[in-house]
Amino acid sequence: MAIENSKKNVTFISGDKTYSLGNGHFYVIAGPCSIESEVQFLETARSVVSHGACLLRGGIWKLRSSAQAFQGLGKAAFDIVQKVTSEFHTGLVTEVTDPRQIESLYPMVSLFQVGSRNMHNYALLKELANQDKPVLLKRGLAAYIDEWLKAADYIDTSGRNQVILCERGIRTFETATRNTLDLNAVAFLKKNCPYPVIVDPSHAIGISELVPDISLAAAAVGADGLIVEVHPSPKEALSDGPQALTPVQFSHLMIKLEKVLNALDRKLQKK
Amino acid sequence: MAIENSKKNVTFISGDKTYSLGNGHFYVIAGPCSIESEVQFLETARSVVSHGACLLRGGIWKLRSSAQAFQGLGKAAFDIVQKVTSEFHTGLVTEVTDPRQIESLYPMVSLFQVGSRNMHNYALLKELANQDKPVLLKRGLAAYIDEWLKAADYIDTSGRNQVILCERGIRTFETATRNTLDLNAVAFLKKNCPYPVIVDPSHAIGISELVPDISLAAAAVGADGLIVEVHPSPKEALSDGPQALTPVQFSHLMIKLEKVLNALDRKLQKK
Amino acid sequence: MAIENSKKNVTFISGDKTYSLGNGHFYVIAGPCSIESEVQFLETARSVVSHGACLLRGGIWKLRSSAQAFQGLGKAAFDIVQKVTSEFHTGLVTEVTDPRQIESLYPMVSLFQVGSRNMHNYALLKELANQDKPVLLKRGLAAYIDEWLKAADYIDTSGRNQVILCERGIRTFETATRNTLDLNAVAFLKKNCPYPVIVDPSHAIGISELVPDISLAAAAVGADGLIVEVHPSPKEALSDGPQALTPVQFSHLMIKLEKVLNALDRKLQKK
Amino acid sequence: MAIENSKKNVTFISGDKTYSLGNGHFYVIAGPCSIESEVQFLETARSVVSHGACLLRGGIWKLRSSAQAFQGLGKAAFDIVQKVTSEFHTGLVTEVTDPRQIESLYPMVSLFQVGSRNMHNYALLKELANQDKPVLLKRGLAAYIDEWLKAADYIDTSGRNQVILCERGIRTFETATRNTLDLNAVAFLKKNCPYPVIVDPSHAIGISELVPDISLAAAAVGADGLIVEVHPSPKEALSDGPQALTPVQFSHLMIKLEKVLNALDRKLQKK
Repeated sequence: MAIENSKKNVTFISGDKTYSLGNGHFYVIAGPCSIESEVQFLETARSVVSHGACLLRGGIWKLRSSAQAFQGLGKAAFDIVQKVTSEFHTGLVTEVTDPRQIESLYPMVSLFQVGSRNMHNYALLKELANQDKPVLLKRGLAAYIDEWLKAADYIDTSGRNQVILCERGIRTFETATRNTLDLNAVAFLKKNCPYPVIVDPSHAIGISELVPDISLAAAAVGADGLIVEVHPSPKEALSDGPQALTPVQFSHLMIKLEKVLNALDRKLQKK
Repeated sequence: MAIENSKKNVTFISGDKTYSLGNGHFYVIAGPCSIESEVQFLETARSVVSHGACLLRGGIWKLRSSAQAFQGLGKAAFDIVQKVTSEFHTGLVTEVTDPRQIESLYPMVSLFQVGSRNMHNYALLKELANQDKPVLLKRGLAAYIDEWLKAADYIDTSGRNQVILCERGIRTFETATRNTLDLNAVAFLKKNCPYPVIVDPSHAIGISELVPDISLAAAAVGADGLIVEVHPSPKEALSDGPQALTPVQFSHLMIKLEKVLNALDRKLQKK
Repeated sequence: MAIENSKKNVTFISGDKTYSLGNGHFYVIAGPCSIESEVQFLETARSVVSHGACLLRGGIWKLRSSAQAFQGLGKAAFDIVQKVTSEFHTGLVTEVTDPRQIESLYPMVSLFQVGSRNMHNYALLKELANQDKPVLLKRGLAAYIDEWLKAADYIDTSGRNQVILCERGIRTFETATRNTLDLNAVAFLKKNCPYPVIVDPSHAIGISELVPDISLAAAAVGADGLIVEVHPSPKEALSDGPQALTPVQFSHLMIKLEKVLNALDRKLQKK
Repeated sequence: MAIENSKKNVTFISGDKTYSLGNGHFYVIAGPCSIESEVQFLETARSVVSHGACLLRGGIWKLRSSAQAFQGLGKAAFDIVQKVTSEFHTGLVTEVTDPRQIESLYPMVSLFQVGSRNMHNYALLKELANQDKPVLLKRGLAAYIDEWLKAADYIDTSGRNQVILCERGIRTFETATRNTLDLNAVAFLKKNCPYPVIVDPSHAIGISELVPDISLAAAAVGADGLIVEVHPSPKEALSDGPQALTPVQFSHLMIKLEKVLNALDRKLQKK
């Protein structure tokens, strides 16, 4: 089929390796919601990398509903990132929340992330089209699949194949879980668009004990990977603690993921 | 945990066997949306039973948005059901749409089904509480999980453990797929309620080529089974053709389901 | 325009008068959520009739999410209805929740009501098509306008013009109010369908102090009337107290409604 | 009530006058979706000002779902704005889509507008907190009322009372109209928050012939004003033509608005 033939793999560099997301293997990106301190990020990185995560996540500038909530360390996180990614020979994906941050983040990131709340921020998307690192584009809270693809087109103007879509739950009437994970969208996109699609189970359900089940479902439906939150002490996290896995829960998840993927003749890409 | 300990298995008889849905095995119920003719139902039954479905589905009275659409064969289907279930030693689940149908359907069904559009039809639920066969209760189009559980409580007044919940997609803003499958609800309910939970992937996504992927996700997330639509010639179906699997697609799905379940140390319950 | 020309007025009898809803005048139906006792219904009826309501509302069989909640007086309400409607020379609209109730309710009602939870209960709608009193059809919780019109077509098969549509709020992501009143739907239907359209502001917003503002908006957008909940002591109501107006609030609302309607060259139809 | 006492009026200058939005009068802001040419903007401005609009609207940088759609004139519109606002002694509200536009827009605007797609763009909101002109903050597509108020708090850090909330329809399952106008939110906010609240009926319903009815409802429910799209030839508009009123339709609307407001003892604030 035409679309299958034109599938776009996204190439990114994480530490000393080059990966090709979209090649059929399953990629796991993991780390804390926010980078809170050197100790916290180091400890998290050590555990997720040792269990096979091929890229770190970690927020530097956070988008929070309330102006009173923790807004991220900002530039104070730069040194921490430098230290931790060097130590573990890995890269980072972090959210860019303002077009004026791109330049300073550029040397530090493997992928830029655009968060759900900025999917429609076309000024930001246009600016990201002017640089050459790939962008992980989360779906807007209430974005139609069609709008999401059009947002990707704002970034992917150059043909450099630089967009990874990330389904992270949509807003519906249901409130028992934080959002409603839309795996229909993942199945639909895998057949109808050229971009790789990953899932953020942490924001999608918002309840850590349910994150592993949802993650296995994402692997089974055909997603290209996960971006999942892990924290050494979720109860003390400065943001989104209730949805963070502990390192032990993460290691168990990786074992199960590998079994499900292998059953479907796929491979879990490990660092 | 208390809830785990009080899990309720639902016992039902299908042909010459007794099953216990909720016991950890994965059950597949399959058949056409509507029973259209003896030939159609016979042919569908033969293929799904031979590939391991342990119960047949098939609509007799249909709830259709338009009064002009096919409303089901009604009582004219009774003889067909009798013939086909005898031939394949299997039972039937069919939708009851009016309290006055219960008596005549009772001898013919293994399970009664309450459709999404009748989840809030408490007059019907109360009447179903007065008989002793289990009820497969689909979630309302826009029902909160909490309302769904309360609807189950209308039926399960006797302690006979007679409710199976069925997630079949909710109505959201997204229109690229027929409904939005809410696997978060399945994960949530498996931890927080005593009833078994199955998934209807056909109504949930409405696009036959995507039904297998969604079905695998349902197995991976921990559902107790599936109810899936199969038709020998989907293009000629009188209702819901676009979401029906062909017998061949169904057989391929069963093979993959078994692999995923086994990877998670679960068993596919076959007839 | 063709549609304008084919507008259907719905004729109904309330006590000693015949009304024609849809003729441009604005009709107010009022009363308690549930008929709780003779004293409560009598007192409510006296106040709403004296302030101009042309028809009483009052629930006999209630659809409640929980089986433990008050389910209505049932047949015990029949004598109360008889007494109160006679005393005030007025009729009643009440909800029918089971096809088997139609016969006994028929002599007592001016209009039958189908509640939001039963809009898709086509067995009930078909049965209502077999009698000659008009039906007030509430919109389903998450029903598309198109589905709502098709549900009306299930009832209005005879050309006797027997459907009044009632917008009562839809279910959306927002939870600050009970439902989300969709006045867009009212404006849309007034231009694009033949049925009269009224609004239920009480269920739509669920907060009594905001019911009058929403009611005025319904009048201004062009609705044909209101069905509004009034209770002599809302805090003691057995159902939906938080959304009931007191008799005094109701009387103030009627004064404002008349002013807004007159400003738009319309008339408030009073008993 | 405490909240009533602390209501914040928003003072802004439009041409040669100072207005105080939130003082009980009803304000109408009108103009084209986008500024397309001098002729188009001049003609629109002449008609809306002559019928009483007290402020012009007009897009300079547009947020469009598709990168291929008209993106606004950008800086090429500046001279047009200068000329037209001088000629009619009026001010402008226009959308700011990038924090780097604030400086150049500042001298030209009476109010900054933050569009629905940027309500969660906290980097932009923080930057707007650093200047002294009021901000018209549209509700996000699927923003809870609570998130909307928290977004306002990002801007209104100084106590200078600089936020006007604008309800413009939310995204729901219904697709017959462009969005679903949530007048419940307006009623709720008028009682529970200090900010003035206006309504954008054009985006809320998206169908020009229904915009006047919805506008009257907004006045009746208690909104502080409207922001409405008007275009001299809607069929030729480069953006959002289907929802634009013609100058004649606008003039009729203003007459009806005044009648409804006067009936409720309020005044239509005219230029």
